[in-house]
Amino acid sequence: MRIAVDGMGGDYAPAEVVKGAVEAARRYGISVLLVGPSDRIRAELDKHDISGCAIEIVPADEWLVEGEHPALAFRTKKGASIFVATRLVKEGKADAVVGYGNTGGVVAAAMQVLGTVGGLSRPVVGGPFLGFAPDLVMMDMGGNPDCRPDQLLEFAVVGTVFARKLFKIEDPKVAILSNGAEEGKGNELVRESWPLFKRSGLNFVGSAEGSDILSGKANVIVCDGFVGNILVKFCESLGAATGHWLEGRLKGKLPDAEIRDLVGTLSAITNGADTNGGGPMWAVNGVVVKGHGRSKAPEITKGIGQAKLAVEADIVGALRMELARVKQATAAVI
Amino acid sequence: MRIAVDGMGGDYAPAEVVKGAVEAARRYGISVLLVGPSDRIRAELDKHDISGCAIEIVPADEWLVEGEHPALAFRTKKGASIFVATRLVKEGKADAVVGYGNTGGVVAAAMQVLGTVGGLSRPVVGGPFLGFAPDLVMMDMGGNPDCRPDQLLEFAVVGTVFARKLFKIEDPKVAILSNGAEEGKGNELVRESWPLFKRSGLNFVGSAEGSDILSGKANVIVCDGFVGNILVKFCESLGAATGHWLEGRLKGKLPDAEIRDLVGTLSAITNGADTNGGGPMWAVNGVVVKGHGRSKAPEITKGIGQAKLAVEADIVGALRMELARVKQATAAVI
Repeated sequence: MRIAVDGMGGDYAPAEVVKGAVEAARRYGISVLLVGPSDRIRAELDKHDISGCAIEIVPADEWLVEGEHPALAFRTKKGASIFVATRLVKEGKADAVVGYGNTGGVVAAAMQVLGTVGGLSRPVVGGPFLGFAPDLVMMDMGGNPDCRPDQLLEFAVVGTVFARKLFKIEDPKVAILSNGAEEGKGNELVRESWPLFKRSGLNFVGSAEGSDILSGKANVIVCDGFVGNILVKFCESLGAATGHWLEGRLKGKLPDAEIRDLVGTLSAITNGADTNGGGPMWAVNGVVVKGHGRSKAPEITKGIGQAKLAVEADIVGALRMELARVKQATAAVI
Repeated sequence: MRIAVDGMGGDYAPAEVVKGAVEAARRYGISVLLVGPSDRIRAELDKHDISGCAIEIVPADEWLVEGEHPALAFRTKKGASIFVATRLVKEGKADAVVGYGNTGGVVAAAMQVLGTVGGLSRPVVGGPFLGFAPDLVMMDMGGNPDCRPDQLLEFAVVGTVFARKLFKIEDPKVAILSNGAEEGKGNELVRESWPLFKRSGLNFVGSAEGSDILSGKANVIVCDGFVGNILVKFCESLGAATGHWLEGRLKGKLPDAEIRDLVGTLSAITNGADTNGGGPMWAVNGVVVKGHGRSKAPEITKGIGQAKLAVEADIVGALRMELARVKQATAAVI
């Protein structure tokens, strides 16, 4: 398996990216194609023992910088490392691409070079977002603020494939996030989505309330990106506030190191979206793993590991098949 | 000041209601009108020392029970205690009514007997919901799942009066909950609401993200009841899950009593809507305080205290004035 990595993407590129990539090549026994300016990548590689590792440099003498307009860059900087890396997937020279740089750049590369699966309009952002519910997939968590019922259903299909392929749950339970569990409750979007979900052949278990994110009622909970984004950010900040409060309450009663560990763990639990080193960008015609720019080598190694898992699970093929099945089940509605 | 209390409302009525009412009469120096069957209320009063307390029994020989259909009951059980108590306000015999029974019954009584202020369509549910942000008013937290921009603006007016009158914040900062802070971001509702908010004369500070619920960016954050309900329930369940996790982590490292206290406090912080003994029902033409049925005497005393504060602050008059001002400022739009 060959995984292309944007060597110039991320706040600590290329040093941390190269370091993480070397570790990934060794740990997972895969080939890594590091894309970037040969001299700088080579200089970083020289700092590590790469004996026995399958690492190759793919030259690219440009790269995107933070704040750069992605669509514009795609036209004027065709040789930028993230675009070169993504084209390796398109051309069959790599099985996946991993990027930790400018989010818009990774998305633009994915959409322009690879396109979407089955006519999905936009990539879907989602996955586990809370350590207390590690086997729950929440979608959408950001990209699509106003949704139609057929889009919610697309998220459910993506979430189902995600849970099936990456969590090994055979028949994931799917729910729609709402302000009440009963049919007929909810906002207009929820009420209009129910009939579609019931016909979908997915394992639809009804609506989930806010408390059901933690109750285990469903493996996949869908909502529009407006609600998803608010929940993720609220969850992170509530974790931080709780940690701060705990520090005050526990100071002097437990050793400082233990308090720090407790608070740090709570922060990781409530920042689920942040701590798994990035995840696959769903709905793209190829495996693209995108991570936070502030990631360091350990997260980058994990992100490359995520890409390997996604390729092995054939998430793209599985999504294509499931989308086709659901489209048929719901007739011409989506 | 005279406050009518539904003596038969609540899971522990009449015993706990009477106990809480006696304490309220003593603590706040107010008159309490206890509404219910004279013999049962009298029997409860006899258990307490009421010397020096201004307490009066207003007879009512019927009452609502849990699960009873409120609108139907309003027609067929006109003599039920909550209706009698609410009519005391309408007739000027009481300054406020406090009810801990069947929520639908309290709402039906308020709407049918007293009506709404300034043409608001429905009561607004809201107030502080998180102990880490005690001075923040969130509205709506339940009643109105699909909202128009003019309804969001109504919530903002109610929240502004709430923060000004009950938190003594002179010019409360108002924000719209959204998935991004900038103008132009958000869902359709948020984007359409901005121009209205900018014209309103309220202290509009823009959109608030999920993390801003705790950041202090605003004193009043408005959202539709769909999002509000999900947030409240998620917050409660995250507090419970965190408490459970803390118990496991701290067991054996701190005395059990201290762990229990820590977990209990966290639960109270994340159940803000639950622990303040109930709050005023906004948009009603009179002061109506509604609390959870499972409340006991201390919460009921606090609820009566809330009613007293609301009367002293003249929340109804203040809301009427502010609504008129904002309607003028936004021209004929709302």
